[in-house]
Amino acid sequence: MLGLDLSRNMLARAREMTSDSAIDYRTADLETATLPSAAFDLVYSALAFHYVADFPRLVREIHQSLAPGGALVFTIEHPIYIAAADPRWELDRQGRKTWPVNGYATEGERRTDWFAPNILKYHRMLGTTLNILLDAGFSLRRVEEFAPTDEQIAAQPTLSEERERPMMLLISALRP
Amino acid sequence: MLGLDLSRNMLARAREMTSDSAIDYRTADLETATLPSAAFDLVYSALAFHYVADFPRLVREIHQSLAPGGALVFTIEHPIYIAAADPRWELDRQGRKTWPVNGYATEGERRTDWFAPNILKYHRMLGTTLNILLDAGFSLRRVEEFAPTDEQIAAQPTLSEERERPMMLLISALRP
Repeated sequence: MLGLDLSRNMLARAREMTSDSAIDYRTADLETATLPSAAFDLVYSALAFHYVADFPRLVREIHQSLAPGGALVFTIEHPIYIAAADPRWELDRQGRKTWPVNGYATEGERRTDWFAPNILKYHRMLGTTLNILLDAGFSLRRVEEFAPTDEQIAAQPTLSEERERPMMLLISALRP
Repeated sequence: MLGLDLSRNMLARAREMTSDSAIDYRTADLETATLPSAAFDLVYSALAFHYVADFPRLVREIHQSLAPGGALVFTIEHPIYIAAADPRWELDRQGRKTWPVNGYATEGERRTDWFAPNILKYHRMLGTTLNILLDAGFSLRRVEEFAPTDEQIAAQPTLSEERERPMMLLISALRP
């Protein structure tokens, strides 16, 4: 098992949480990282790929690193969440929480304040993300836009706004 | 070639525009229509499926009607365009045209005024539409969210708002 992160602090934390001689933790930048060929059954990434500028390169690199039948499973921030120039809850005329969308077809850099000011992420249309996977030779297995269930909202009422607009996109793809 | 529509007026118009003995025009309701097995190389639909309540049934029916290697190509209104309770352009704090999104995870009926009042359409999340195709045995080939190019906007400036939010979703899928 290979675990990659750009941050040495995050890798130190991962080693602390899951110390196992089967895991090889390495510092790597997903913009330039190379991976061994047909070496993995599963590549998994959580909420990282929307920080990667050259997503087609990364997807091709992952594709060649998977054994035939291997899977790429990842989450990103949903493009509807990322797209707008001024992303923030508004109220519609009925007082309902509403998420603004603009600039959807204008892909590229978006800057927001999150933990630190001026965090850089990349907006890609949902179709673009899927077509990059298809162009690299992946077949799509599942596309999910997370929304909490009624039970989850009853347990944690602040989650209800997550039914108003998708924040997370979960994708499963196979190397045939 | 088989041409289906629920509206006799639309079929009369189609016969008038394209009269060809190879085309069999028939009145049919996509909620209940059945199709012959492995009979077609291509099934094509333009901006109709978002009026269909039971989309999984229709997709299964289309899948079995395609010869192996056959394609389903269709357009629907984009779920971002359909989702909101009160869909209309707003301006953001910078005065930029902004499209409101809410109720995205609440699938089902939406009613809008368009040509006639109270037109019924069905909101499905983008992931839901794709997963219905995958569950029926389709493999996805292309997912496009139409946006006009700079050249198209120069020729027809009112198109520019179509870059702010996706209105059309274009999907191509194969029966393997």
